[in-house]
Amino acid sequence: MFANTPAPPYFAVIFTSERAAGDNGYAETAARIVELASQQPGFLGMESARQEIGITVSYWQSLEAIKNWRGNYEHTLARQQGREKWYSGFKVRICKVEREYGL
Amino acid sequence: MFANTPAPPYFAVIFTSERAAGDNGYAETAARIVELASQQPGFLGMESARQEIGITVSYWQSLEAIKNWRGNYEHTLARQQGREKWYSGFKVRICKVEREYGL
Repeated sequence: MFANTPAPPYFAVIFTSERAAGDNGYAETAARIVELASQQPGFLGMESARQEIGITVSYWQSLEAIKNWRGNYEHTLARQQGREKWYSGFKVRICKVEREYGL
Repeated sequence: MFANTPAPPYFAVIFTSERAAGDNGYAETAARIVELASQQPGFLGMESARQEIGITVSYWQSLEAIKNWRGNYEHTLARQQGREKWYSGFKVRICKVEREYGL
């Protein structure tokens, strides 16, 4: 359930979103996008939860890996649908993870 | 609901956690800790959701602000209780936010 990330530095994409009403194909596409992301070179893991807002954090080896994933065709189509019908709002934050610890 | 963060760079703490069984004072302390964090110098906002795992991302002006918050007495006591009884596991990742965009 936790992403099993390596020692920093690595990169994180924090995607915070508010869903618009109705499924409109969201669930099916979201599952497909997770599957596709996890097959991308440089993908390190993903963590996700949704209540009032959804937070999905994906972890990547490099900014190059993030850029390549962004260029993926199915992912690009999904982002268009996201803007048009699935989300009433979202934020994407690209981060460099500098330190990690845990229990 | 979304943190209204300024133009990057700024910093993020991604706290991913799995709750242990029982409340044991968790809800009350969690609310207090959010209240305290939001009063800290350099605090920029917070986003949170919990399903199977919980993800809380807090945003900060500087690493110094994160360090000062970490030194807060009530926060330190809460983290001890977290390790002892509230969480079966967690990860903390300290990040520099380099780019942000959204809808």
